[in-house]
Amino acid sequence: MFLGNFLTDTETVAVAACFFGKQRLEYLLELFGIYARPRIGYFYQDVPVKKETLRELVDLARNSASASNRQALKFILSWEPEKNAKIFPLIGFAAQLRDWGGPFDGERPAAYIIILLDTEIAKQTGADTGIAAQTILLGAVEKGLGGCMHGSAKKPEMMQALNIPAKYEIQLVISLGKPKEQVVVEKVGPDGKTAYWRDEKQVHHVPKRSLEEIIIG
Amino acid sequence: MFLGNFLTDTETVAVAACFFGKQRLEYLLELFGIYARPRIGYFYQDVPVKKETLRELVDLARNSASASNRQALKFILSWEPEKNAKIFPLIGFAAQLRDWGGPFDGERPAAYIIILLDTEIAKQTGADTGIAAQTILLGAVEKGLGGCMHGSAKKPEMMQALNIPAKYEIQLVISLGKPKEQVVVEKVGPDGKTAYWRDEKQVHHVPKRSLEEIIIG
Repeated sequence: MFLGNFLTDTETVAVAACFFGKQRLEYLLELFGIYARPRIGYFYQDVPVKKETLRELVDLARNSASASNRQALKFILSWEPEKNAKIFPLIGFAAQLRDWGGPFDGERPAAYIIILLDTEIAKQTGADTGIAAQTILLGAVEKGLGGCMHGSAKKPEMMQALNIPAKYEIQLVISLGKPKEQVVVEKVGPDGKTAYWRDEKQVHHVPKRSLEEIIIG
Repeated sequence: MFLGNFLTDTETVAVAACFFGKQRLEYLLELFGIYARPRIGYFYQDVPVKKETLRELVDLARNSASASNRQALKFILSWEPEKNAKIFPLIGFAAQLRDWGGPFDGERPAAYIIILLDTEIAKQTGADTGIAAQTILLGAVEKGLGGCMHGSAKKPEMMQALNIPAKYEIQLVISLGKPKEQVVVEKVGPDGKTAYWRDEKQVHHVPKRSLEEIIIG
């Protein structure tokens, strides 16, 4: 199926020709590959992310699937240094890199999207949080950004710091910015360890299980 | 940012020209839009989905983010009518369409991907299930397929019917096939109701909250 499937017939022919026979999925794969890269995230902190960009990313999530279509997720955007400074110390970064104290000032995220559950709409999010987060990060990569999902956060402190009403529950924090880090996705080695690691050149390595290991039937 | 960012410089020029200045994100938006459509799913059941296609979809999920990179999700594929027939009666379809008894024989999914948690690796999936499911469905749309995430399933019966070892927990079932249904994403009306519905022409309507309603700060 070619990219052209989303275009008019005339455009299809042109685009198909341009793609030299490559299927769009290959580009998606590249996209996902790139998405996988800026997982941990240190950034060019001085490259700002616009409010409008964050709104566009949430709009992608808005149009995605939701359990029973209840749409119980709400979002808080942060793109200004003052608000960012409130959020940064309350989220966990790269817990498996114990020797790393970063990201350091100047390499911190330039923006955040906080995903909340509106408990007046639903008591749990099911798969909705992951659907929204993946959609947002995919869109972010598309915009030349990278990011990280932070499940680890000091949630009570964040509720207070941002004056979030008690009816909301923080689900996930997404950090965003222009990625500075180099990341390599590779196979899990014979020791079976999946922990990510950094080499001496500060390249971030992410070992992924094989397709054979994860398809069980 | 143009699609061309993932191509060589020569390809970039050609593709950028073909796209008439459209940004790739616009195509992603269309893609997500299309993805949102075949949400409920009745299908051209006689159009098969190949095993290799399902493997490619899982491979997209495999390369995506995972909490602490533990990769505790495992997958079962089904593309043969016999196995499909075991799965179909054990999943819930469109609970909000109470008068609909379908999808009926001939319009049922042609394939399934069952997402499991390997409890020997992790005790919960966090956002991983949603990340994987969204990734798979996005890839499916790319391949001219559509699908639905089924959180509602008779899980003990499915464990038994498919001889799934007890260390796995069923998280979500994704049905797949060539979509037959017409779906429209629209605004939530003044009554605030988000339940999806079908009109007399069997067009499926999915009301989505506005961006203003879901961005709270």
